[in-house]
Amino acid sequence: MKKSIGAKIPIYPAPVWVIGTYDEAGNPNAMTVSWAGICCSDPPAIAISLRQSTYTYGNILKRRAFTVNIPSEKYIKEIDCLGMVSGRNVDKFALTGLTPVGSKLVDAPYIKEFPVILDCKLLNISEIGLHTQFIGQILDIMVEENCADEKGRPDLLQIKPLLMANLSYYHLGEIIGKCYTFGKDLYAPK
Amino acid sequence: MKKSIGAKIPIYPAPVWVIGTYDEAGNPNAMTVSWAGICCSDPPAIAISLRQSTYTYGNILKRRAFTVNIPSEKYIKEIDCLGMVSGRNVDKFALTGLTPVGSKLVDAPYIKEFPVILDCKLLNISEIGLHTQFIGQILDIMVEENCADEKGRPDLLQIKPLLMANLSYYHLGEIIGKCYTFGKDLYAPK
Repeated sequence: MKKSIGAKIPIYPAPVWVIGTYDEAGNPNAMTVSWAGICCSDPPAIAISLRQSTYTYGNILKRRAFTVNIPSEKYIKEIDCLGMVSGRNVDKFALTGLTPVGSKLVDAPYIKEFPVILDCKLLNISEIGLHTQFIGQILDIMVEENCADEKGRPDLLQIKPLLMANLSYYHLGEIIGKCYTFGKDLYAPK
Repeated sequence: MKKSIGAKIPIYPAPVWVIGTYDEAGNPNAMTVSWAGICCSDPPAIAISLRQSTYTYGNILKRRAFTVNIPSEKYIKEIDCLGMVSGRNVDKFALTGLTPVGSKLVDAPYIKEFPVILDCKLLNISEIGLHTQFIGQILDIMVEENCADEKGRPDLLQIKPLLMANLSYYHLGEIIGKCYTFGKDLYAPK
């Protein structure tokens, strides 16, 4: 039997992404987000949600750009720390020892140590409530060579991305199998 | 060293959610989506992206409501099948043997067999490109009793949700630990 628990945020594994931006003075900032996801295949685009009070919020509005940095779980201390403090008060790169590098394509820094980087141009803004959603068009993806498969694509088993749910971090588990194979037991196209 | 792979959709683990809707005639439909995520804490809201060609797209526009059904991996055949065929041509509930139940709160059906159900009212629509993003306000969450923790909240280790990346399904891995604990090694608030 199902029980109602009211209008809440589902305790579902969400991504752990780090957003790179420049402030008005050109100082790099980085912030961990989880209210985020892929939102379009063509143009390739992702959506991230931020509270208006964050430093990153103002940075994206001014610079119209950001990077999405997909971290490996070995940086869990740094990732966690980037979600604990505001760039308004602290130089988060100095604090964590991570290295900002200017993107060649957009007006935002990326994090050298993280294996997958998305250069994003601001496409759309939706005010929802406590959070504002920013949609970014992906102009390029960069992948660290030792985290790429034979075709150069991100290899999740090498990247070891984090997931977040109910204020805990989770590992990604093993592969089960390919999409559009399991359903053939129930439906065989003619 | 990092290598560019161009403007693509990142091969990142994405959620596997099933969207429940009614068509104009009142027939229930269900569709698997992965371009999706949480987008606001207050009001609690989620975003899902659909191609305009899907049957679900028209259903949401007409009914202004949908359910998000978070499945357990034991239903992988049914979940996969719901992403392979269109409700325009096939009664997907008859095909899979899943059971549609009318939501008490919104004009949409949910799937009886799935452990976590979100009743969503359409809040906003963004045309992005190939995909259109629908933002739904969560009016209630229902959780199957054997998938709830002692506080009634969804227990991910019981639910066993699926993740999707690079057209493969993944298990969720084990818990690593609580957020805002790892970062304390780098930053101690005064």
